[in-house]
Order: sequence, then C-alpha cells, then structure tokens
Amino acid sequence: MTNSTALLPEAEFVAQFHAIGKERYHHKHPFHLLMHEGKLTRGQLQAWALNRYTYQSFIPIKDAAILARSEDPAFRLAWRKRIIDHDGDGTRPGGIEKWLKLVEATGLSREQAIRGEGILPATRYAVDAYVDFVRSRTHLEAVASSLTELFSKDLIVLRVDRLREHYPWLSSGLDYFQGRLTQAPEDATFALAWVVKHARTREEQDLALAALRAKCDILWAMLDALHFAYVTPGWPPPGAFRPAAKDS
Amino acid sequence: MTNSTALLPEAEFVAQFHAIGKERYHHKHPFHLLMHEGKLTRGQLQAWALNRYTYQSFIPIKDAAILARSEDPAFRLAWRKRIIDHDGDGTRPGGIEKWLKLVEATGLSREQAIRGEGILPATRYAVDAYVDFVRSRTHLEAVASSLTELFSKDLIVLRVDRLREHYPWLSSGLDYFQGRLTQAPEDATFALAWVVKHARTREEQDLALAALRAKCDILWAMLDALHFAYVTPGWPPPGAFRPAAKDS
Repeated sequence: MTNSTALLPEAEFVAQFHAIGKERYHHKHPFHLLMHEGKLTRGQLQAWALNRYTYQSFIPIKDAAILARSEDPAFRLAWRKRIIDHDGDGTRPGGIEKWLKLVEATGLSREQAIRGEGILPATRYAVDAYVDFVRSRTHLEAVASSLTELFSKDLIVLRVDRLREHYPWLSSGLDYFQGRLTQAPEDATFALAWVVKHARTREEQDLALAALRAKCDILWAMLDALHFAYVTPGWPPPGAFRPAAKDS
Repeated sequence: MTNSTALLPEAEFVAQFHAIGKERYHHKHPFHLLMHEGKLTRGQLQAWALNRYTYQSFIPIKDAAILARSEDPAFRLAWRKRIIDHDGDGTRPGGIEKWLKLVEATGLSREQAIRGEGILPATRYAVDAYVDFVRSRTHLEAVASSLTELFSKDLIVLRVDRLREHYPWLSSGLDYFQGRLTQAPEDATFALAWVVKHARTREEQDLALAALRAKCDILWAMLDALHFAYVTPGWPPPGAFRPAAKDS
C-alpha cells in the first residue's frame, strides 16, 4: 500500500479528486465568502460578472479543443453537449447569453462585456492558460481539468440562494446558474467515469489529479486578481474597469 | 493632423512609446516603490526573486521564438545576442545564472527556483502570455513588445542603488543588473529602430504601440500578484511559496 507507483483502486482515485476540490476549489475563496455574506458592492459584483464573462465566453472554445482531440465518436457526441449548453441551439439561449443577462442585471452593458473592455489582464492570462492546457496536455489531462464540475453544484445552490437574499436587484440575471444545476453534474459524471476508465497507470492517474489541481489554480487566480483589484487595498491595473463612485 | 489613419511622423511615433512607458511601465508599481524605500522584508524579496526567476528563465525562449520568425539573417544576428546575454556563452555566466545568484543571496536555493516550487500560478500565466504573444502576433508586434527595455535602465540604476542601501545582504546577488545596464539600452535601440522602419502603416504603428501596452500589462500583472500574495492583506494561493516566519 506504500507503493507510490501502484495503480490506485478506483474508489481511492475518485476520493483524491474530491480531496483536491475540498482543499483548492474556489468555493473557499474569500471573494466568494464576501459574496455569500452580502458584503460585495454593486461595483464589485460588476467587476466579477465582467471578468467572469471572459471565462464563460471561452468555455465552448476549450470544449471544442477537447472534442477535436478525440477519435471516438461516442466521446465527441457526449462532449458536444457542452458546446450546445454554452452557445445555445440557435433558439434557446445558451450559457454565454445567460451570463450576458447577469452582466446586464449588474447594470453594465452586454457590449462592454463582449468587447472585453476593462477586463483585468490577469483574467485573460488565466483563461488563456486554461485553453492552452486543454490543447497542449494529453487528452486525459484535458478531460480531468473539467472535473471542477464535481464541486460546482453545491457552490451554485448556495450562491443562488445568497444572491437572491443579499442582492435582490440581481434576480433577473440568475438563469445561468439554474441551467448549470443540472448540466454540471451530468457533465462531471461522464467526465469522471471517462477519466477513471482511461487513466490506466499510476502515472496517468497522477497526471489527472494534477490537472484538476491546475484547473483549481486557474479559477483561484481569477478571484485573487478580482479581490486585489476591487476588494483589498489593492488597485485595478492600468486600463481596467473602475466602478462608478456610486457603486463602490 | 486629426486624421487618425495617417502615418505618424517618426518623432511622434517614438514619443508615443515613451508616453506608454511613463504611464504603464512597472517602475510605478507600488511593489517597486516599497522595494526602493527599503520597506520589503526578506520573505517578500525572496518571493520576488523566486517568481521573477520564472520570467527570466523564459526570456531566451521568447527571444528564440522571435528570432525564428525572421527570414532576415541580419535581424537574426542582432537578436541572437539576447539569447547569449541570458543563457551565457558556456564560459561566462548569462543573465539566468546571475538571477540564480540573486535568488541565493535572498537565502533561497537555486534548486527551488529551477524547480519552480511555490511559484504563483499567476506568474506562470503571465509568462506564458508573453511567450504566446511573441509566437502568435505579427513579427512587428513581437519585436515591439520588447520595448519595455527603453525604460529599464533608469529603473535598474535606481534599484541597484536602493537595494545596496536598504538590503546590503543582497549585494552578492546584483551582477544581473550590472549586465543589463548596457545590454538593455543596446537592445532597445536596435528594436526601436527596427520597429520604426517596419511599421509602414498607421495600423501597424497602432499595433506596435498596443504591443508595448500589452507587455507593460504583463510586467504589471506579475507585480500585482506578488503584492496581493505577499504585501497587502491578501494571501498566497494554495501551494505557493510562504516565507519562513522569521523572514516575514
């Protein structure tokens, strides 16, 4: 059992993913804690919605990059769902459109989000790091990096509850989270089963676990940058969004 | 004169690069101001040296990427100097080796820097963004992004003076800066002349100016991340370097 090169039993492998989430997922980030305690200003929520839009808008691009790596039509069919979830089907709005509604509910225009005006450079670097990760690492690591979705449902349930309570003026913008309550767990179930099946050596298992850690780092770094620019006695970098005085 | 599509006269084009540096170069970053006032702890200087090592270690990689884009042997010959400056010539140490001496002068081991242990994820994302920029943008933009070197001499002169004054225990690690005092201005003179000559339309001039802004963003974002993790009431992200209690 002390052999660090032996394949982990499935239950242990899965438990290690959950342990990473417990330690590193961004549900623990102080920016989210302030959000859930109702302590963020409108300006801070605007900065969050605006920067997170950049992340949301790249989700279908990163999923298409993962889809493009698979020669298995069954995998591609399952993964394709994610692109539809975010881009929509041409009739019903997808997650990106719903996030724009959230941006509008904060009082910013959708155009500002789409133009990326005032986005923190650090947000762009983190998003680019994610897209680059799924393109350049192994297919297994790319899929494993999506496993933050194992933890997103609990965070979203709490968030929607607290946003409604503390920031009722945001209520018209919460459709995105409603959709994710069912989408994310479905996606995570598929991805976890796939990773468990395809990590055939201990080295591959370790790479898959490291991929989840790397993804947690990306989500955490985006909130660090937001926190520094808009919460602590830090500062938005040159050129970044600055809340109107009345919203700060 | 109000025609925003007319080619800028050379003097005006050059002046705009200097205006960008004045506004956005990281000499104005509060982390540097604290450094120059002698207000950083040993732990904070360790974090700076460690994270900045990641940046330094990628400089020859980014310069090789720029060199690889040119079909002009004269350009490649001039640019090759930069790789030698940082990697050394096999006999005399280059900038990377000298930076490791700085890391050691702070009290950390060179091995820790080389392994990248405890580096802020945000540092890696910014460095990767720089390498990606010079690979994926036009050759003109890639060269223009190096023009922060127009401003580095003044910062280095001040820094060396203040490091010697406030942190005399660092003195054995300052060779890097000595070398850069002559290298950076030579490199900047070549790069600026090349950019002036090769930006043949106003659109290209604007792209070159934007490239310098993008590079300033990268340098600034690395210091923001350091400042948040190690100076303000922020926190190092999970897994990042934490100074020993005695050094903080």
